[in-house]
Parts: sequence; C-alpha cells; structure tokens
Amino acid sequence: MGTEFLNIVESNDAKKIIESFFNQLYALESENIPVKNSYNRIAFQDIYSEIELPLFDKAIMDGYAIKAEDSFGASGNKPKVLKCIDSIGAGSNSEKTLKNGECIEISTGAPIPKGADAVVMVEYSEKIEDSNDIAIFKSLAPNINIAKKGSDIKKGELILRKGNILNPVKVGLLSAEGIENLDVFKKPKVSIISTGNELLNQSEKLKPGKIYDINTNLIKGAVLSSGGKVNIKGIVNDNYNKLKNMIEESVQESDIIICSGGTSAGVGDILKKVIDELGEIIIHGISIKPGKPTLVGRIKYKLIIGLPGNPVSAILIYYILIDLNIKAMTGSSEKNTIKRKQYKLAKRIHSAKGRMEYHLVEIKDNEIYPIIKDSGAIASLSFSDGYIKIPKFVEMIDAEEIVEVNLF
Amino acid sequence: MGTEFLNIVESNDAKKIIESFFNQLYALESENIPVKNSYNRIAFQDIYSEIELPLFDKAIMDGYAIKAEDSFGASGNKPKVLKCIDSIGAGSNSEKTLKNGECIEISTGAPIPKGADAVVMVEYSEKIEDSNDIAIFKSLAPNINIAKKGSDIKKGELILRKGNILNPVKVGLLSAEGIENLDVFKKPKVSIISTGNELLNQSEKLKPGKIYDINTNLIKGAVLSSGGKVNIKGIVNDNYNKLKNMIEESVQESDIIICSGGTSAGVGDILKKVIDELGEIIIHGISIKPGKPTLVGRIKYKLIIGLPGNPVSAILIYYILIDLNIKAMTGSSEKNTIKRKQYKLAKRIHSAKGRMEYHLVEIKDNEIYPIIKDSGAIASLSFSDGYIKIPKFVEMIDAEEIVEVNLF
Repeated sequence: MGTEFLNIVESNDAKKIIESFFNQLYALESENIPVKNSYNRIAFQDIYSEIELPLFDKAIMDGYAIKAEDSFGASGNKPKVLKCIDSIGAGSNSEKTLKNGECIEISTGAPIPKGADAVVMVEYSEKIEDSNDIAIFKSLAPNINIAKKGSDIKKGELILRKGNILNPVKVGLLSAEGIENLDVFKKPKVSIISTGNELLNQSEKLKPGKIYDINTNLIKGAVLSSGGKVNIKGIVNDNYNKLKNMIEESVQESDIIICSGGTSAGVGDILKKVIDELGEIIIHGISIKPGKPTLVGRIKYKLIIGLPGNPVSAILIYYILIDLNIKAMTGSSEKNTIKRKQYKLAKRIHSAKGRMEYHLVEIKDNEIYPIIKDSGAIASLSFSDGYIKIPKFVEMIDAEEIVEVNLF
Repeated sequence: MGTEFLNIVESNDAKKIIESFFNQLYALESENIPVKNSYNRIAFQDIYSEIELPLFDKAIMDGYAIKAEDSFGASGNKPKVLKCIDSIGAGSNSEKTLKNGECIEISTGAPIPKGADAVVMVEYSEKIEDSNDIAIFKSLAPNINIAKKGSDIKKGELILRKGNILNPVKVGLLSAEGIENLDVFKKPKVSIISTGNELLNQSEKLKPGKIYDINTNLIKGAVLSSGGKVNIKGIVNDNYNKLKNMIEESVQESDIIICSGGTSAGVGDILKKVIDELGEIIIHGISIKPGKPTLVGRIKYKLIIGLPGNPVSAILIYYILIDLNIKAMTGSSEKNTIKRKQYKLAKRIHSAKGRMEYHLVEIKDNEIYPIIKDSGAIASLSFSDGYIKIPKFVEMIDAEEIVEVNLF
C-alpha cells in the first residue's frame, strides 16, 4: 500500500535533531570586513576602546577659552575685560599657555589651550574695537563648555559586544575610534535547487502540464531574510544523474543545500536515492501537516534539506525547521528574530489527531481567521499574516480561544 | 553679540516646510527591475493576474485519476477494480480520455486527464500483480484530491498592490505567474559630505586637535536604513571653493545632499555661503535642542541639508526631519516604519522653556532613564534605546509620568 517513509519523526524531535546537526556540523565562523560596510552584520568580537573619547579636553561652544576665575563677578552690566592672545579653529592647536587676564578665541571642537579651564560662549562676549580686548559678560564656573578627555569613553571600556548588531550608531562609534575593520559572523551560503519535470523558468513559455518554478525565488527570499547568502542552482528535472551532479557541486560550493520537490513517496523519489548514495539520510518524513515528505540528510560535512515541492509546505517547513538555525549561524539570537503574538480565534479550527498541524491565518480587527484555501495555494500564503500550531493530540480549537500566532 | 541666525523656525514648522519641499521637488519615481532581485523593494504598480492558478485541474496527491462514481461503495474490505490505461508524471500530459472502469496513474502536480473527476491516493490502492488492474479501497466524492484550475488565483485578480513590500511570498507569487520584471519605487540617492578642518579619515593617523570623522558612516547607515542609496563624498575642509565644488558635483550626482558640520554661527559658517551662491537658504536655525544650527537649502531642484557637526545632534535631526521623507520616496508609509511606545519615566527631566527639546533615554525594566552624558557623546547614543520629545513650553516632566519614546 504505497511506499513507506523510513525514519519518520515527530515535529518536535525533527526540530531537535536538525538543530543538533547544525551544531555538530557547523562551527560559527567569522570574517574580517570593513567597518563602513558592516551595517546590519553581527559582531563576532568584543571591542574595547584603545583611546579616550574625546581625545582631548575640547570646546563644545564657539567662544573664548579663559581661566574661570577671571570671569568671577562679570555680568551683563559689568563685563570683565581679557586680552585675546591667539585663536584656535577646529582641527588646530595653540602652543600658548593662558595666563590670568588673557583669553584665546576658540571654535567648537577645538582643544582647550593650556592654562584655560572654561569657555565663554561668543553670545556672552564682545570684541572691543581697535584692540585685542574682549569684554566677558558672564561669570563662569570651571569646566563650563568643556568636554573633558575620556568623558565619553575611557580607554579600555567595552564599546562593542560579540553578538551586537552593527546599527548606524555602533558603526559611528567604531568610526570615532578610527577602527577600519572588524570581525563579524560569516553568512552561511545556501545552495537552492528546485526539482521537478513540471517546472519552468520564468523566461520560458508555458507548455501543457508545466508550471513556473516558485520555490527558487520563494526560498531565496526566505534564506536572505534569515541572513544567509544564496547560491541559485536552478531547476533540475527528476533525473538521477543531473540531480546528483548538481548536489555534488552544491556540496563543494556552499554550507547548506536546500532542495524542494522530488521528495514525495510516489513517482520520482530520487532525492532520497542521491543522498543515500552520497551520504546518509537523517530524517525521512515528519509527522506534521503540511510538510510530511520532508527529507534531511548529510553529505560529507554538509546538511541537505529536501523540502516538499508544494510552495506553502516548503516555506512553512523552512520557517519551522531551518530559519532559526541559519539565523544562529549569522550570530543572531532567537530573541531578536521570532515574532509571536496572541490573538483571539474568530472561528473554530479542526485538526487531525496524531500529528502536529500548522494553519495559515489572517489577522482582521485583532482576531484571527484560518485561511481555508487548499494547502498548495500560493495566494493563501500571500494573504496570510502568520501561522498557528495545533499540537498532536488536539482535534479542535474553539472560536474565542486565545492562540499564539507566529507572524511572518 | 554673536552672529544671528536668519530664517530661524519652530521645530514643527521646520518639519512641515521640509516635507513640503520634498513633495514639491521630488516626483515619486519608479524603476523596472527583475522580480528575482526585488526583495524588500516596494511595488510601484498594481499587478493583476494574467493567468489562472493552478493553470489546469491538477492532482494534489500521488495516486490514480478515476471517475469518482467508479469508487462508490469501495472500502478497505471491498475494493473496486479499475483498469490502468496510462501514467502521467508531473510535467507531462495524457491525451487519453478516461472511461468508466478505467484509471490513470498520476503524480502530484500532474494535470487531471479528461473524463476523470477525482484522485484516489496511492495509499488506498493496490496494483494487482501481472495485470494492469488496480484495486481501489476507498469511496471518493467528486473533486477529491484535485486543485481546480483558477481555484488559487483567477485571471484578472489583483495579486500585488502598489505600495506592497516585496516579501519572499509576494516574489513567489509573481514567480508563479511567470512575471520576470516589475516596477518598484526608485531609491533616492543621497550624497553625504562631512565638513571640518578637524576631521580625519579612519585610514589616517591621529594628530593634535584632530578627530576621526563619525558622521559619514553614521549618516550613511541612517540613509541606508531609510531605504536610500548613498554617494559618499567624504571629508572636506572648511574651504569655500572645495566645499562649493563638492556640492556642485553632488547636485549632479544625487537627489539629496546631506552635509554635516560647517553650520555653526562661529568660525567657518561656509556652507551657508555656498548655498547662498548656488541656490537659496530655506531654513537657517531651528528652535530645537540639540540641533539649533540646522540649515536647509535648495540648489536647482535638489534639497541640501546642513546637519550640526555634533554626531548626536546630526543623527537626531536626521531622524526627526529627514528619515520619513526619504522613506516616503521609497514608497514606504509612515505607519510601517515609525516605532513608538509609551513608558513610565524613572526620573524627573528638566527642559529649557522656549524650544523643543529631545532627550536620549535608556529603557530598563520597562521604565525610561534619561541619559545624562553631554550631547556630543557618541557613547550616549550608542547606549540609548530611543528619544523623547519635550514640548516648547514644558519645563519639567516628573518621575512616574508616562511619556512616548521614539525607539531607534
């Protein structure tokens, strides 16, 4: 009565088995890349500051560097007059040492000259015509309008932690330190193969019995969103030798191989044969709906995943079993990436007892509606907001119950 | 008493003025790109299906195509026997028309042959040895295990709406239709210039009074996250002719020009002079803290924004005034992109009356803490989770009050 699946496993066991193979086969790898191209990558190293920031005591206002004590008693009616002995623009420096009764004109960002301990804002000063004298209209406490060396970041302070996402501000902080390169998690490379005699490339003309390949682009998008790199192998017919050659190439070229199609128990179960010859089957069939004919194997030190040909099943299985493992290889933590939210179920849902079921749902007015199109329908996926999980021994979830939605 | 700012405006007015200039100067533009590279772009066109999906009535199980009536009464103990007259693999087709008493072997995805109206799963069938006879162990209603032509998507149905984000599923849906190219919103190109005599490129050695340029990489990251393309012009000293040349190039090369530095009222207010010569100043100074010395101008039909040199001010002003305008050019809607959440304030915050103030905050245990480092500190930005806004006439927000945080 039909071909049996060997190695058929429960959904939760499949998750654990796949995760453990990812952990066994793949060391977390790093690559050294330019800081200026590191946006959205994840740091592979802790970085400690090698300098103090600011690098020197600096003016945070345009004005005059003074000894604060020389301003004591100054006010809008009763200025103190100081002699201006130099001018420091941003990026320059003064060799002079300030003495009592003197001031130095200074720009925002410029280093405070020796002897000075405050900056009076230009708005509280006035140049006295035909002289080097400056009238100061405000009494300042020491350190006013000065950012002290190291007040932002001390030498030796942790500025980036392994696992941090390189957002614009982290990249800015590394730039402030003059750091040009850093180690980030390497993106795993995933080969994507679509198998099936019925599949056409989008550049081909439709013929009777043929359909356009969906899975290459669908899975490519999912892998990219998990943070992986893709290696598109394209469509291969249900031809043992062609598929075997393509898989051998993929094992050389990439870390992970994802096939779709060619896993059904009927005509053309050739992927299993190829894996049997080149490596070993780990899982053949999962007690899950949709997605039962999922295959997991190992060829040398590379995992190969055979997803169902049906695009809805393929993408659901990808999200359920593969997504987080690829994210983990990129250094991303589960916490940051899974989006779940609880909603009230608008309509009763039935489920077959004996296997885990996944149902696509749509969210309307904060309630969820199951999508009832047949499971192969790409449109149903396109209109869905996420999916819910119905455990093995649950046959029905009633309307009004609160369920957790895994959001796309 | 110091140089005045002309055209100084309130924060909310600045927002409105900048938005209206974006609307006046920039038409929303599209570009035609390959569907397979369109991930995360935003559709510029509605797309209606030109075909029916599925393209033909197709088997959704491996098994035998039959006339349903021929199975009536069949059961596990009492099979019906049908004569197998052909076999249809996925991607192929049968010219034969099924008559009563006949069946055709069929694979998942293959077109249903003429005359058949149901598919019996292989699991409920058995080939009778040395014959073409097949025993059927199940009674089927018509249409069982068949996905009807057009049941997923009808010809003429809307499959993609202008403004939709091209997620993996939308790309899959276009692939199913055999669509190879589509119109998406063009990304605006933003030239980024850092001005200041004190600035060094990360590849240069530190010298007295110099600091590494933060703003190029900081603003680059922000523009990329808004969905723009960047054109890095690099560092230019406070030299009128060099800055003027660089800005003239940028007007040719890009849609928007963002400078930082060179906007202060003190030494070296050269950006304003360049804009005055090449175009017109729209805003010079905003009643906002931090970020007062912000400049907005127009050169030919391009906007030029002069952000403060201080990186914290620069990035805050970018997020407050520029981010959403660039997102709008990419087709993204405000609703999708702004992240705001209410939190309880852990500590009282004071604010100067008379101008809008923005304060960086850190979120701990669902309460927010103001970050008290000085406003130039890149580290303060790096440790902050977002910012709060204190209106012009509010001088203090007390601990325990609920405030809205704009999350980074």
